[in-house]
Amino acid sequence: MSAIPESFARKTAQVSADVTRPFPNSEKVFVQGSRPDIRVPFRQVAQSPTLTSGTPEENPPIPVYDTSGPYTDPDATIDLRQGLTDLRGGWIDERGDTEWQDGPSSEYGRVRAADPELASLRFEHIRPPRRAHAGANVSQMHYARQGTITPEMEFVAIRENNRLQELRADPRYKKLLRQHAGESFGASIPEAITPEFVRDEIARGRAIIPANINHPELEPMIIGRNFRVKVNTNIGNSAVSSSIEEEVEKLVWSARWGGDTLMDLSTGKNIHETREWILRNSPVPIGTVPIYQALEKVDGKPEDLTWELFRDTLIEQAEQGVDYFTIHAGVRLQYVPLTADRVTGIVSRGGSIMAKWCLAHHEENFLYTRFDEICEIMKAFDVSFSLGDGLRPGCLADANDAAQFGELETLGELTQKAWAHDVQVMIEGPGHVPLQKVKENVDKELEDCFEAPFYTLGPLVTDIAPAYDHITSGIGAANIGWYGTAMLCYVTPKEHLGLPNKQDVRDGIITYKIAAHAADLAKGFPGAQLQDNALSKARFEFRWEDQFNLALDPERAREFHDETLPKDAHKVAHFCSMCGPNFCSMKITQDVRDYAAAQGVSEDEALKKGMQEKAVEFVNKGAQIYREV
Amino acid sequence: MSAIPESFARKTAQVSADVTRPFPNSEKVFVQGSRPDIRVPFRQVAQSPTLTSGTPEENPPIPVYDTSGPYTDPDATIDLRQGLTDLRGGWIDERGDTEWQDGPSSEYGRVRAADPELASLRFEHIRPPRRAHAGANVSQMHYARQGTITPEMEFVAIRENNRLQELRADPRYKKLLRQHAGESFGASIPEAITPEFVRDEIARGRAIIPANINHPELEPMIIGRNFRVKVNTNIGNSAVSSSIEEEVEKLVWSARWGGDTLMDLSTGKNIHETREWILRNSPVPIGTVPIYQALEKVDGKPEDLTWELFRDTLIEQAEQGVDYFTIHAGVRLQYVPLTADRVTGIVSRGGSIMAKWCLAHHEENFLYTRFDEICEIMKAFDVSFSLGDGLRPGCLADANDAAQFGELETLGELTQKAWAHDVQVMIEGPGHVPLQKVKENVDKELEDCFEAPFYTLGPLVTDIAPAYDHITSGIGAANIGWYGTAMLCYVTPKEHLGLPNKQDVRDGIITYKIAAHAADLAKGFPGAQLQDNALSKARFEFRWEDQFNLALDPERAREFHDETLPKDAHKVAHFCSMCGPNFCSMKITQDVRDYAAAQGVSEDEALKKGMQEKAVEFVNKGAQIYREV
Repeated sequence: MSAIPESFARKTAQVSADVTRPFPNSEKVFVQGSRPDIRVPFRQVAQSPTLTSGTPEENPPIPVYDTSGPYTDPDATIDLRQGLTDLRGGWIDERGDTEWQDGPSSEYGRVRAADPELASLRFEHIRPPRRAHAGANVSQMHYARQGTITPEMEFVAIRENNRLQELRADPRYKKLLRQHAGESFGASIPEAITPEFVRDEIARGRAIIPANINHPELEPMIIGRNFRVKVNTNIGNSAVSSSIEEEVEKLVWSARWGGDTLMDLSTGKNIHETREWILRNSPVPIGTVPIYQALEKVDGKPEDLTWELFRDTLIEQAEQGVDYFTIHAGVRLQYVPLTADRVTGIVSRGGSIMAKWCLAHHEENFLYTRFDEICEIMKAFDVSFSLGDGLRPGCLADANDAAQFGELETLGELTQKAWAHDVQVMIEGPGHVPLQKVKENVDKELEDCFEAPFYTLGPLVTDIAPAYDHITSGIGAANIGWYGTAMLCYVTPKEHLGLPNKQDVRDGIITYKIAAHAADLAKGFPGAQLQDNALSKARFEFRWEDQFNLALDPERAREFHDETLPKDAHKVAHFCSMCGPNFCSMKITQDVRDYAAAQGVSEDEALKKGMQEKAVEFVNKGAQIYREV
Repeated sequence: MSAIPESFARKTAQVSADVTRPFPNSEKVFVQGSRPDIRVPFRQVAQSPTLTSGTPEENPPIPVYDTSGPYTDPDATIDLRQGLTDLRGGWIDERGDTEWQDGPSSEYGRVRAADPELASLRFEHIRPPRRAHAGANVSQMHYARQGTITPEMEFVAIRENNRLQELRADPRYKKLLRQHAGESFGASIPEAITPEFVRDEIARGRAIIPANINHPELEPMIIGRNFRVKVNTNIGNSAVSSSIEEEVEKLVWSARWGGDTLMDLSTGKNIHETREWILRNSPVPIGTVPIYQALEKVDGKPEDLTWELFRDTLIEQAEQGVDYFTIHAGVRLQYVPLTADRVTGIVSRGGSIMAKWCLAHHEENFLYTRFDEICEIMKAFDVSFSLGDGLRPGCLADANDAAQFGELETLGELTQKAWAHDVQVMIEGPGHVPLQKVKENVDKELEDCFEAPFYTLGPLVTDIAPAYDHITSGIGAANIGWYGTAMLCYVTPKEHLGLPNKQDVRDGIITYKIAAHAADLAKGFPGAQLQDNALSKARFEFRWEDQFNLALDPERAREFHDETLPKDAHKVAHFCSMCGPNFCSMKITQDVRDYAAAQGVSEDEALKKGMQEKAVEFVNKGAQIYREV
């Protein structure tokens, strides 16, 4: 591992075409905010017209929330060795509350920076870290509470709206914007997301924008119950496999399919260097679990962990630009015995590390006792808390038990502490929970943690389907998202069994995009049904290409179709292989419509003349039935 | 297609080993009922002991509801040319209310039987059909209403209990039988399913046992809200592909993975012969949509359909042994215009056929006007109704609209008509429905259709994921099952795109087994959590083999694990490739337990001596934490 990976050694290092190929019939469009440097990217999917007997009907382009960053932009030059454009640098500068350091201030960071043996692995253009002026607080929550709308807040407001206000004013979208009323279980989703609404949600702690000042490359996104439900993905090498190059490729792959944030859970020996490559090339916020790296530094012995070592790790990672830290500060000594009767004990890695530390020292968890000191670090870089659920259930039997809910109450206490420092917080949740017990998790989190955003792993609604746990957990995720969870941590088919490969990651992400979108629809998020309506209209009209292109995974939709009907002609065929050319319900329905038209009045004529009486007559004759007149 | 398929030409025709391979470490066990010919099959999964420092702890075998029939029984001889054993023949005989006919009485059946060109395709040992004596009614509902408990009812009672009463009396299962309280939304699930409860549920129409007297090979199963949620799968060739042999193989494959019933939706030219092969070899009830075949008989022209032709088709299929018919009798002329403003019109094939017929003739649907005559046929063979939802929504936008709910009300009216004939009924449901609108479907069905079992297709909770619609619909299916749907019709990844292959079918079925099981757990079905608890205990104790064997899909779980850690030694390794050997939460948890034990008292000793005080002391010392004492 001492040689630089081959692709990085090329003049312009590139990830593979496989992960950057632009989506079909899509263009990257930017909506400008109140100033030229606020440019919010969307993917816009063009559609073909509907071919009717009369003039073709135009089908307008559909904007799609886009997490893929510059990687799918044919106009962008990607050079992993340079990293992405410093999108937020100017915004941070102009706030005037930070200073550049000479270099890393953590002990570990300095050691790694000085080690000549690591030169070949190292990202070349490491910026010195920024830090808040002494005594300053650079968190988005701090700004929000001061009444300031930052460019980050405006960016996410535009992003969340997905151009809905423009579309509402455009008659081409009228029918496409029809949507069922939602059931949001007490969420407060506005008809339009304004920058002021974003500011207010952040100020009251109901949403966070994870955005470390040392990760200016990211495209800001927001996590909160009154916004689109988000999806987190995990990557990470392990003792068994993976290289730096693979990890960066995984990041791009994750962003491509819709991962909103990414947790780097690497545990190998070059995690510091891997993390730098990931951060410099990531358009999405990056989270970590610092205790994992701390544990590596003490050769895997939890009892040897110290606050000083952990603190150094926090600073090391904050200076690199990690946007949120999972901190298992709720695993208090008193809760550990509550896991005694569990079927699967403590299954969270962080939870078991801290439990072991507490027992070895017979002391309270130092993450809990040092929490205020941790907050001081967080606010100097705007790192957000993801308060870890170290006692989450590892099976249905252990769901919603005293250990889990005891910890949750402590997370609420810590939330208030963090908020006293104006530090952003989200709360991690389970795990394995049967369907009828899922809602209690959200209700309790909202109450105990004062509506801080909830961020759950699944939950899996049964334990008996290893190899299909993206699905068992996707069911739980859709429900928990509907009830009010703000972000869903994905699960791949390899969960419990092994390391996911590229296809597993894609399956996991798409499953979670489905869950998140199902939740948005169920909550009645404005405009959420647009893509569904457009795709369904395309499906009904046999516009196969549009159907593929509007899908969450256009490539696989096309592949699956082509397995049975590969010819280009079939892309416009009014049938598919399911029923064959003579037996397709959609074809029959269209035949009925043609029949109706043949009775003497075309749909267009009926529509234009507004012949209500005529239409009634046709209905009575069994004719005009497929259009409202 | 005139030559007999090669495998059938062999002396003992066999499906491939792939679909009949017994499940690992499992045996087929039979529980005998009140008489020797009631023998209910289960699969029983043996487990290895837990290796502890003391004496190994025995882990008892886990019984699993088994739909696979004799195909996974190494003691059974499978010969597709002979068909399966006539399990129910004696039960039907002894009721003395049926008579053998000389041969098929339908015109079409006679024509096919007499055609020498079909000899090579034909199942060899066709029994003459049975039929009720003139004026008699042989439906399970009729018997139930007379107060008779049939062997079929006793069989399903034993089957539903899954040996729970035996297990409750066995101390080895005490912890494994822990289960969360359910939320059943008004279902009436008893602690133990008795034959009398089954009879009562059938008598009041809340459950059905689809079991045509001409399909004596089936192992009876029950569909109702107070029983385990069931899964239907679909097979069927189409104009584009498939042979008889493939269809039989698909049937066995479906039953293997847990399909409870199977609908044969074939539309090819030899569907009569294909159906015979399927029925004679099917341990699960078979459903069809007779209008599909009727349409074939009029060369695909709906307007040429007649009652006489349809009636002949019903008799043809009833005499072969089809257990339930989807009949789109609710697509009334008056509802058709209500689909005018829909995004996707009428997407049900049966619905669009009948809509076209109604419009062409400007007459009421003949399935509606002839409903009493259809009931007369149903009760002569005990064919159950699956009242089709021909106006189900084909996209989210069309969900829960006036057309859909208008038809549902008519299905309620027809339910009462069928019940007046003592004919068994279930009600088909959607389709595409956003999560927040799913429950309304169940509530309305229960009210409008008087709690007749609901049988839904998904529903898909978003339209934007073609290629992943097993998942979009699995989410809806888990929820609708929880709310009270009795059977879930599966959807494969190829839905909307093409014909599923073998792996697609497996993915679809397992997804739906997950959904059905999640619903059983959520409703609190007694004993439902047993398999979850056993698998989770195995997982926690690193009994990899047991974890695989207890999974819904043992083969894929093992494959996925072996992709990263193929060696046999890893099957007992206390780590997996996700975290590597030095960084596994479960390992850490076990280390903590060992540490606790090392403090001086083993878990066993503590348990035996019941040393409550000692335990408290250990907790205070941070020691004994993983067992309740």
